[in-house]
Amino acid sequence: MSDVRDNAQRVRDVRVLLRDERDAWVPSASASGDAYIIPLSFSWDGTFLTVATPRASRTARNLRRAGWARIALGPTRDVVIVEGPIVEIRASDAGEFADEHARIVGFDAREQSEEYVFFRLTPNRILTWRNPAELPGRDVMRNGHWLA
Amino acid sequence: MSDVRDNAQRVRDVRVLLRDERDAWVPSASASGDAYIIPLSFSWDGTFLTVATPRASRTARNLRRAGWARIALGPTRDVVIVEGPIVEIRASDAGEFADEHARIVGFDAREQSEEYVFFRLTPNRILTWRNPAELPGRDVMRNGHWLA
Repeated sequence: MSDVRDNAQRVRDVRVLLRDERDAWVPSASASGDAYIIPLSFSWDGTFLTVATPRASRTARNLRRAGWARIALGPTRDVVIVEGPIVEIRASDAGEFADEHARIVGFDAREQSEEYVFFRLTPNRILTWRNPAELPGRDVMRNGHWLA
Repeated sequence: MSDVRDNAQRVRDVRVLLRDERDAWVPSASASGDAYIIPLSFSWDGTFLTVATPRASRTARNLRRAGWARIALGPTRDVVIVEGPIVEIRASDAGEFADEHARIVGFDAREQSEEYVFFRLTPNRILTWRNPAELPGRDVMRNGHWLA
């Protein structure tokens, strides 16, 4: 059935989307369980998914506390959800990756009047589906390993 | 500057998107602050934004506890975020709205083997923007009132 992609195809499609898509939905929660969501630009270097946001923002506070994020990319009919541990890096401490991030997203977090931080996510699990028929095989990465 | 819509235009655009868009990102959180996100189809009848999901799902558990939701619609370059109190209704107790919901989303939550529930959100706050220049005027509804 052509509506259901095989795993190798899904992995290829996810890699293309990580390379070409620039915006993600970033949900987060407070310690007391208040859910929040904002869209953020991201970059992907093959290993880390990176976003930047003001250090004092609600999302930064929530992500810092959790140490883990689940981020949604792509349109809702081509869902990609990337989940894993995150590390926070202050813009003032950022290494060379910050140049590449600024180039890709078109916004330099180190040059804002407000203080920014980066969050870098190492994918542990990645899910993807385009329709309900694809739900059974939605995992394309588990425990940090691509399943193709 | 044509990149910044006035408030009346934003309200019109949001109403069109609520009518025509069918998918939303639904973030939620556990009592201990674990954030979660899934896409769900929604319907809008001018008063309530309605979604349906399995009663035993993680999202249902989280939303039930919170009694409040913040749901994201539309592409990340035409952001609409709808926030407000939610009421849960079992599929077996659903009134006529369930017929309309099934017609709009193309999926009848009352006819699934798994037990489904509806969550109906009454918008209290709605935000919308297409670019950073639009952020200052992003509120189009506050305390349940359209600002146009």
